[in-house]
Amino acid sequence: MKKEGKDELVAEVVRRVLKETGNASGREENPGISLQPQITLRLAVALIERIERLAEELGMRIVAAVSDAAGRPVAIHCMDGAYIGSFDVALNKAYTAIAFQMSTARLGELAAPGQPLYGIQQTNEGRIVIFGGGEPLTRMDLDGGSIADDSRSDEAASSRIIGAVGVSGGTAEQDTYLAAYARSIVKEVVSCL
Amino acid sequence: MKKEGKDELVAEVVRRVLKETGNASGREENPGISLQPQITLRLAVALIERIERLAEELGMRIVAAVSDAAGRPVAIHCMDGAYIGSFDVALNKAYTAIAFQMSTARLGELAAPGQPLYGIQQTNEGRIVIFGGGEPLTRMDLDGGSIADDSRSDEAASSRIIGAVGVSGGTAEQDTYLAAYARSIVKEVVSCL
Amino acid sequence: MKKEGKDELVAEVVRRVLKETGNASGREENPGISLQPQITLRLAVALIERIERLAEELGMRIVAAVSDAAGRPVAIHCMDGAYIGSFDVALNKAYTAIAFQMSTARLGELAAPGQPLYGIQQTNEGRIVIFGGGEPLTRMDLDGGSIADDSRSDEAASSRIIGAVGVSGGTAEQDTYLAAYARSIVKEVVSCL
Amino acid sequence: MKKEGKDELVAEVVRRVLKETGNASGREENPGISLQPQITLRLAVALIERIERLAEELGMRIVAAVSDAAGRPVAIHCMDGAYIGSFDVALNKAYTAIAFQMSTARLGELAAPGQPLYGIQQTNEGRIVIFGGGEPLTRMDLDGGSIADDSRSDEAASSRIIGAVGVSGGTAEQDTYLAAYARSIVKEVVSCL
Repeated sequence: MKKEGKDELVAEVVRRVLKETGNASGREENPGISLQPQITLRLAVALIERIERLAEELGMRIVAAVSDAAGRPVAIHCMDGAYIGSFDVALNKAYTAIAFQMSTARLGELAAPGQPLYGIQQTNEGRIVIFGGGEPLTRMDLDGGSIADDSRSDEAASSRIIGAVGVSGGTAEQDTYLAAYARSIVKEVVSCL
Repeated sequence: MKKEGKDELVAEVVRRVLKETGNASGREENPGISLQPQITLRLAVALIERIERLAEELGMRIVAAVSDAAGRPVAIHCMDGAYIGSFDVALNKAYTAIAFQMSTARLGELAAPGQPLYGIQQTNEGRIVIFGGGEPLTRMDLDGGSIADDSRSDEAASSRIIGAVGVSGGTAEQDTYLAAYARSIVKEVVSCL
Repeated sequence: MKKEGKDELVAEVVRRVLKETGNASGREENPGISLQPQITLRLAVALIERIERLAEELGMRIVAAVSDAAGRPVAIHCMDGAYIGSFDVALNKAYTAIAFQMSTARLGELAAPGQPLYGIQQTNEGRIVIFGGGEPLTRMDLDGGSIADDSRSDEAASSRIIGAVGVSGGTAEQDTYLAAYARSIVKEVVSCL
Repeated sequence: MKKEGKDELVAEVVRRVLKETGNASGREENPGISLQPQITLRLAVALIERIERLAEELGMRIVAAVSDAAGRPVAIHCMDGAYIGSFDVALNKAYTAIAFQMSTARLGELAAPGQPLYGIQQTNEGRIVIFGGGEPLTRMDLDGGSIADDSRSDEAASSRIIGAVGVSGGTAEQDTYLAAYARSIVKEVVSCL
């Protein structure tokens, strides 16, 4: 087979595969639909169990929740003796991190008196939490990317989000520590699924 | 037909039409009812589409809502990839701008700690938003009037309001920019309907 | 090039493309995430406008809502003079069709007194509607498939759903007619986007 | 050491241990407090995972929730592709089974039109589910007791309850089957913790 033939073959195969899979770049060509990455239950539970293990080592008793990219809960565990009130807080921290595509700690800064989003906690029917413990999970985390990237400059920001973690039970700092820990181990956890 | 007969006929027709349509001067003669100007779906959607176009140019992905003079939603569009949390915020920015007949940016100033309306965001079942992005639409906008007029000194202020725009997805400044833009093009958009 | 070489080449290309696109069959290979198809704003608005046109021909004034595969609203239009109460109903019909992956008319049958889901309308915080007017939209509709398929026998049922339509303003039969109409024209509408 | 001394020592140790652990017979001696048996997170998750395994074998995708004796959620898992609406339903089936100390299937019979509890689904802020899939877990289940006992004739009924299971995603019969299955394996699951 000549080079041209080979190139043509490659192109043809690529065309067929792309047609079958719908897109080449993670984007659906069909203008009627897009594809949204979603965290699986398997990953959600594995992350929660790792958070629990660390919380236990730290002598904490927390509630940990993982939501999907649409802000819906995937799994929630309440450690024995955790605050009753933490169920709602953990769930809503995860929701908040999805709803505004940033950590709840960052949102808290923007929602302080005098800051641009002061009052945002009154929206979304009381589901917005403006203190630390909620962290978005992104495709970048799957690949072992930086955990500090809360910016949304990237055009594909929302399509990168696969879910979120919400932790409640300690101080805002402790909860942030545990949620960010979960974010930092996504790649490692996935490799063990 | 003689001229007198013709004039009489015209007058009678005018009387009947006016009776049916309610009034001749924009004011209801019947002391039992008033006429509330209302934005139409057609205008609402046209405004939203213009907001979307500008948002796209700015690289923003937002939710835009238009409510009628009673604070009820007329149309809402969520651009692909907009914040999930923006649906509630945009809808309620429009509601707020109607509820207190001023922009949400202005209400935010009045609702800051130490200011006269501090705490107003706790009222109206969590539907009050106190940062920029909600703008009322008035009859004056239909005629190409100033967009800066948030005062309510005019006794007929409430009867001037025809609806409101709520935008959420960027910073409060960006959202205000988009909502005020919509307000500034009302006359132009209407002329193209 | 010999057959083996060609086969190897094809296999290599397929491997590379699959790696880039994430999957071969619409399923993400990564055990940590799955891909959820989502209706775009563009398709949502185009469907709503078609519903409006038909409603106008029928002398109806309705509210039409389209939600994404996660049950979140994408676009809502309230025709001038539509029932105020229809906003909530249309939005929740779309939510319901997503929440239980069937039309609200079908759910209504299952929720009748004596039927297996009697009482389901009390769940999901009052968002479940059990009369006609809510229809799920599936990938099959994109391809011009049957609109009658409410069964969930197919293992990939949930991954087929791309959104839902909710219509409110007429009788349950009329609303179902309009929502099913939207479902039947998805393929045609997409081809014109 | 003589036998009398030994017996006395044993009795003393037993007394002290009982004092510390609260009681010997399942009743608190202190008239000011009682001890409420509670399911642990460990048992809750183990039960949910067993339900998931069976659901998978049956080709079902469900949401499973376990609540403690106070009706509060301990753990919830949403299988990939489960109905969105099932989160609320599973959670509230578990709540309902605790709230009225009987299975939701049994409550459904009592809540049918014409039956003594008709209308009960309107109470408890919309958290009552009146179709199958919620089952209480009791101390008896820990000991391998009958799963059919929904009666409350025993005065100590409430002190026997340790939690509840709620399953949603299939028909009411399938959900009941999965929840009752969880109840039937409590003893076995505990022995493996």
